[in-house]
Amino acid sequence: MRETEIVARIRKLAEAGYQGRAIVKGIGDDCAILRPTANEDLVFTSDMLLEGRHFTRRTHSPADIGHKALARCLSDLAAMGAEPVFCLVSLAIPAGLAGPWVTRFYRGLLAIATKYQTTLAGGDLARFEKIIADVICCGCVPRGRALLRSAAKPGDKIYVTGKLGKSWRRNLRPEPRIEAGSTLRGLGVRAAIDLSDGLSLDLQRLCLESQVSAEIDADLPIARGSTLEQALHAGEDYELLFTAAPKLSLPARAGTLPITYIGIIAPGHYGRVLFNGRPLTPKGFDHFA
Amino acid sequence: MRETEIVARIRKLAEAGYQGRAIVKGIGDDCAILRPTANEDLVFTSDMLLEGRHFTRRTHSPADIGHKALARCLSDLAAMGAEPVFCLVSLAIPAGLAGPWVTRFYRGLLAIATKYQTTLAGGDLARFEKIIADVICCGCVPRGRALLRSAAKPGDKIYVTGKLGKSWRRNLRPEPRIEAGSTLRGLGVRAAIDLSDGLSLDLQRLCLESQVSAEIDADLPIARGSTLEQALHAGEDYELLFTAAPKLSLPARAGTLPITYIGIIAPGHYGRVLFNGRPLTPKGFDHFA
Repeated sequence: MRETEIVARIRKLAEAGYQGRAIVKGIGDDCAILRPTANEDLVFTSDMLLEGRHFTRRTHSPADIGHKALARCLSDLAAMGAEPVFCLVSLAIPAGLAGPWVTRFYRGLLAIATKYQTTLAGGDLARFEKIIADVICCGCVPRGRALLRSAAKPGDKIYVTGKLGKSWRRNLRPEPRIEAGSTLRGLGVRAAIDLSDGLSLDLQRLCLESQVSAEIDADLPIARGSTLEQALHAGEDYELLFTAAPKLSLPARAGTLPITYIGIIAPGHYGRVLFNGRPLTPKGFDHFA
Repeated sequence: MRETEIVARIRKLAEAGYQGRAIVKGIGDDCAILRPTANEDLVFTSDMLLEGRHFTRRTHSPADIGHKALARCLSDLAAMGAEPVFCLVSLAIPAGLAGPWVTRFYRGLLAIATKYQTTLAGGDLARFEKIIADVICCGCVPRGRALLRSAAKPGDKIYVTGKLGKSWRRNLRPEPRIEAGSTLRGLGVRAAIDLSDGLSLDLQRLCLESQVSAEIDADLPIARGSTLEQALHAGEDYELLFTAAPKLSLPARAGTLPITYIGIIAPGHYGRVLFNGRPLTPKGFDHFA
């Protein structure tokens, strides 16, 4: 199959998916065109999924890979309290996958795109020895209201959504916490990050950006069958970690997800995380460690 | 070097580069944040550069690769008549390149980013056996004024900027035709595409999107030392191909670039390109051909 035919097939699949009004031109030109809405900020993130590092063809079906590639990226939008607008997909694949595999990949990706009202607006396609899927997501948020990593303040309470310690081996189709992120933003929480590389590393990142430290002083909501070690350090939970002013009253759930208090933000010692009173060394996922 | 340290280094380099006012939050959060300007459309494109396919470490220095990764993407903005706003870079590299190589790559990328007033606003970093650089660019254009592939009309004259037949072997640091694209949009040209995969293939693409055909009936502006065959089919020229109403009076140059008339748009035979009266088979670059 020639590149032109594959692109024509992807375009047909995309046009049968969710079509948001903000995208005035999707696949078929040099660029996609977005008409922004007044009084909104737009947020952008990219996330690269690599065969052999984030998945294998043995463990993940084409649709799993398509789902995961977009879900990881949407999870970053959720961490800003944003609602999805569109995505672009840069896909590289071996020649042998140019037929049904591509269709299944895009069906998986478009299923979750439609669920979260994300328009597939464009991307790139190339041939390569291994599968590479780089997804770019754009979301929108009321002007000046995005949840930042850098907004945590000493005295803030720290919370997480859902359960921790789910690893990717048991989490083939993670769900981005879009609804929870948007709800939490509306409730007035302060800072947020998504847990993609493990609680210990991601909490440290939030603390470094906010120039604060943190103390975990409550039980973690550990996923069934997981250990405390996994809840602290395993990546790919795709839950939200957030902080809120101590006086802010939060419900027990954001949408269907439980919210659990796990600790407190403290001044000084930028980036230090205490667990049971002792410094917690981040062991989360680091590509180059 | 750990991922955190590499990211900190990239962030420092990015913050020393061009900082556009539209980006209210760059590297350091889950997403970059853009505050759109009223009455503008935003255009988006992604372009994946793969080691062994688009470059090798022997032929391209790290700075060449950084330059080329962004230049290809900016070329798509030029084809819309857009001005650059920001880029995201998803980069995968072997562990051994995590030190000075990364710095040199970003220096090359940021040099051209600064030249074309593009803010490096974020991205992703991962370890992989080979170098993969996927760049995402966002540009802006007055509302409803983007140049489309689909806007050509029968009777339009066809033009190209610059010279054709430059191949990537002699074109290590291609310049995106940003100024020409913006100038041509202001002059009222109708349709445009950038020549990234060869004139024969890209002109066919424009014709297919516009549901027209084309006839090349004038001499092509062949680059010095290149053949007619290369001017017709070689990829990576990164010039602009555009059409304009027959009555539109165009200057001889767009900025510093010569503009050359090469043919005419005709009705029917969607996607057919005639050259000297005979159908021209597209031989441009096709990843899966």
